[in-house]
Amino acid sequence: MTPLQTGAALCDYFQAVLPEGACDDSPGRCAGYARTTLPGEVRPACVLYPASTAEVERVVAVANAHQIPLYPLSRGKNWGYGDACAPAEGMAIVDLSRMNRILELNTEYGYVRIEPGVSQGELHDYIAQHAPGYWLDCTGAGPDASIAGNTLERGFGHTAYADHLRTSCNFEVVLGTGVRISTGFGHFGNAVAANLFPYGLGPSLDGVFTQSNFGIVTALTVWLLPRPQAFRSFYIKVKEERHLAEIVERLRPLRMQGILNSAVHIGNDIRVFTSQQQYPWMEAAGKTPLPLALRRQLRDASRLGAWNITGSIMGSRAQVRAAARELKAAMRAVGFTLFVTDARLDWGDALARAISWLPVGRALARNLEALRPNYGLLKGIPTTFPLKSLQWRLREPGGSLDPLETRCGLMWVAPVLPLSGAHAEAVLRLVEPIFTRHGFDLPVTFTLLNDRSMVAVMNISFDKRVEEEGAAAAQCYEEAQQALRAAGYYPYRAGIQAMPSLWENSAPYAGVLTSLKQAFDPNGIIAPGRYVPSATDAD
Amino acid sequence: MTPLQTGAALCDYFQAVLPEGACDDSPGRCAGYARTTLPGEVRPACVLYPASTAEVERVVAVANAHQIPLYPLSRGKNWGYGDACAPAEGMAIVDLSRMNRILELNTEYGYVRIEPGVSQGELHDYIAQHAPGYWLDCTGAGPDASIAGNTLERGFGHTAYADHLRTSCNFEVVLGTGVRISTGFGHFGNAVAANLFPYGLGPSLDGVFTQSNFGIVTALTVWLLPRPQAFRSFYIKVKEERHLAEIVERLRPLRMQGILNSAVHIGNDIRVFTSQQQYPWMEAAGKTPLPLALRRQLRDASRLGAWNITGSIMGSRAQVRAAARELKAAMRAVGFTLFVTDARLDWGDALARAISWLPVGRALARNLEALRPNYGLLKGIPTTFPLKSLQWRLREPGGSLDPLETRCGLMWVAPVLPLSGAHAEAVLRLVEPIFTRHGFDLPVTFTLLNDRSMVAVMNISFDKRVEEEGAAAAQCYEEAQQALRAAGYYPYRAGIQAMPSLWENSAPYAGVLTSLKQAFDPNGIIAPGRYVPSATDAD
Repeated sequence: MTPLQTGAALCDYFQAVLPEGACDDSPGRCAGYARTTLPGEVRPACVLYPASTAEVERVVAVANAHQIPLYPLSRGKNWGYGDACAPAEGMAIVDLSRMNRILELNTEYGYVRIEPGVSQGELHDYIAQHAPGYWLDCTGAGPDASIAGNTLERGFGHTAYADHLRTSCNFEVVLGTGVRISTGFGHFGNAVAANLFPYGLGPSLDGVFTQSNFGIVTALTVWLLPRPQAFRSFYIKVKEERHLAEIVERLRPLRMQGILNSAVHIGNDIRVFTSQQQYPWMEAAGKTPLPLALRRQLRDASRLGAWNITGSIMGSRAQVRAAARELKAAMRAVGFTLFVTDARLDWGDALARAISWLPVGRALARNLEALRPNYGLLKGIPTTFPLKSLQWRLREPGGSLDPLETRCGLMWVAPVLPLSGAHAEAVLRLVEPIFTRHGFDLPVTFTLLNDRSMVAVMNISFDKRVEEEGAAAAQCYEEAQQALRAAGYYPYRAGIQAMPSLWENSAPYAGVLTSLKQAFDPNGIIAPGRYVPSATDAD
Repeated sequence: MTPLQTGAALCDYFQAVLPEGACDDSPGRCAGYARTTLPGEVRPACVLYPASTAEVERVVAVANAHQIPLYPLSRGKNWGYGDACAPAEGMAIVDLSRMNRILELNTEYGYVRIEPGVSQGELHDYIAQHAPGYWLDCTGAGPDASIAGNTLERGFGHTAYADHLRTSCNFEVVLGTGVRISTGFGHFGNAVAANLFPYGLGPSLDGVFTQSNFGIVTALTVWLLPRPQAFRSFYIKVKEERHLAEIVERLRPLRMQGILNSAVHIGNDIRVFTSQQQYPWMEAAGKTPLPLALRRQLRDASRLGAWNITGSIMGSRAQVRAAARELKAAMRAVGFTLFVTDARLDWGDALARAISWLPVGRALARNLEALRPNYGLLKGIPTTFPLKSLQWRLREPGGSLDPLETRCGLMWVAPVLPLSGAHAEAVLRLVEPIFTRHGFDLPVTFTLLNDRSMVAVMNISFDKRVEEEGAAAAQCYEEAQQALRAAGYYPYRAGIQAMPSLWENSAPYAGVLTSLKQAFDPNGIIAPGRYVPSATDAD
């Protein structure tokens, strides 16, 4: 890569191939894109807004001609993993949010073909209107977050289609070389099953375009979940902290036997607090993390368990009834399983209205209001609800839910572990003392990813207005990662701050990734430093 | 690639790095490996038998040093797709059948780690003995066929784990460069979830090692299906040929709603005949294909439907009961659904024994005997039963079930199509006249691969002792493929004879595959011509 060029120089190149206003190097614009929930900031040289695959191709051609590092992003809502920032300064951000067309909706087979700028909220609303027989699987990143972005990061949602890579196909990609291909059968122009069968013929390439930097994905097919005949969400409150291992051991057979097939979440009390309130600065007398007595008091006041399990069951009426019975029986030893359905929620609303003149009626209304977004998310309705929880540690919580505006600090620690009680406990034993030492609470959710593994989703919440907190967060993150890696727990996904250390002690494998990078993007213009070691790193 | 070298010259190189007897260029050995169920034969230069990953690494090093084309195979039972043959003559076959160790069995999470030479029969028996709580998913290729070989070809079996790529991970691969890597988290030596979570960190590579020629896979992890609490197989006889579209349309919602989640097969009458008997040469007066009147007569005599649907339902008792009810109701309009369970089979056996002195008792015993292998296969018990059907067109059927010994001719035509009745009919309309014109019957099974697509598994059965039949088969295959491709139906898998035409009119995509080949195997020593166009083809 040649030395970095100024934003003005880059815009000279790109403006020749893009419409008026599609390249912006103004200080204000660049400062906006420099903001991140991670400690520090990363300033780009300019921001490009291509509106079509053809424009992306022209951008890639210019970048190759002038050795310009591009950093593509779908909508820039990669919260806590780098947001809209590149791993290094001075790149040309390729913001694909103008490519937000829904190219095709097929209600016979249940799929949509979309551009990367399509948001969860847009697609959800479109499906609700035009394909009410289907649901979208959504993440908790909010209605504005991109579907393609999450899929390419191998993110997951909440329904039986939670694994987004497994429920998408036919990626159209403009490679670093400038060549445009489609994966699976997609490259055969006339293939009738291109959006229905993922593998195609010959090597299956979809996986290499996830968590990588080989090209810019300009369209993809997303399968939609047929609206199930019946649906129930479930909630299990487990009082005792020490029951974690038993919870996991009891859930594993239910998942392996296919009795549960949606994501199941096991959250601790802190995870729930963060969604309900701010850090109690006053009650804690300014101290962090949350003093134990105060934590117990909050837990009791909210009637929370030490562990709080949520998930859903969907299928035919008879299947759901059968699965609910088995879940309830299996979990009886650790807690009571409460089921919620549309009918029960509506009944609750009616009741709350009927007794709204009583304090208990108003409390019921509040509880139902709090429950709805979570319940909806399990059915694929995007919500801003989880974004609120990012404000947990702010001294001056803001009205905006955009964590960049309120200057929320956020770093995810998300190791994959076997679906085993002993491993769940081991991860907590490793991570909790590190968080405590640095003054951070440990919100944790164990999420079942497949029949055999889960991810421990933990996050460092901090206040970017308080400089020491950023430094402490960075240090805490580094120590937690190192401890987890040493014990064999690797993350399912990484933030831009983690990229440089991703391939430590992985020489032969890192070298192979580098040689793939050479094949797909010989000039190294696409997202250098993202997930794949560059030629110089591997030496 | 330098000009081909003699087997003796190659053995000189390889014998220096392999144990005594692990390289064989004797004419008899090479002639044995030249046999194929396809028309013609393909003679290798020699056959190597490495017994460990270290020996594979040495073989690859020698091949790179002397530009020797290697053709790896697991157990050489790739029936009808090339068997143990390379796409071209003069290669060094790398037969991995000595690498048949079961490296690890984990009964907590239900997986095995195996070498490529492990057969379905070996692994099934091992699991039955050491992990009776699990089932293996098997294909119909017989107990001697390799599990790794099928997985790397993206084959499928019959249970809820039918998609073998989706239920395996952590591939150990010796690349063409000689570098050895493991996919997913596997390359991190200490990763605790390496056998449980498929994607790892960074680009996910598993898919690129399927249907490709980038390296030699020397070990992989295979997930085992937890033995379900309840299991039923089902059989639906549909009398009328014209009901095909309706069958498919009725099955799609059952599959999309998750009521059915194992492979479902819709076979025509010819498919069943081939498994029950030889071609009726005498009754047909030597004519082919089967005269219509004779076909109807055979169908009636066997009490077969024009379409015969088989599959299974597994899960908890309540789930299976519920799914069975819904299947039966959905299919009532086209045929009666018969369920078979272990208990019913045992009861049938007892009954047959009790009335064995009556002709009907003996008939019942025969029917049950015929049913058992198919029923077992749906539960992952490998069987030689489908191999028998390869002899359909032989004039002198042999006692051996090895199609190479009896000189069965076999070519698969296996296009992927949308899970739609109209497409099922369209494929038949395209292919049937071509088969008829060349004198071949059309056995067809539509197999549901996922919730949105299916494969039409059709095969040309011929007698290799009759030279004209081979030529007719090759011609028939070519015409069928061309017609299907022109209509947008591409195969899920291809035989060695199909490789040269695989990437016609796919210039940019083929070029990308070629550049990947350069990255993984710059000297082009691994299976040249297999699935991936070589540098010269792409020019």
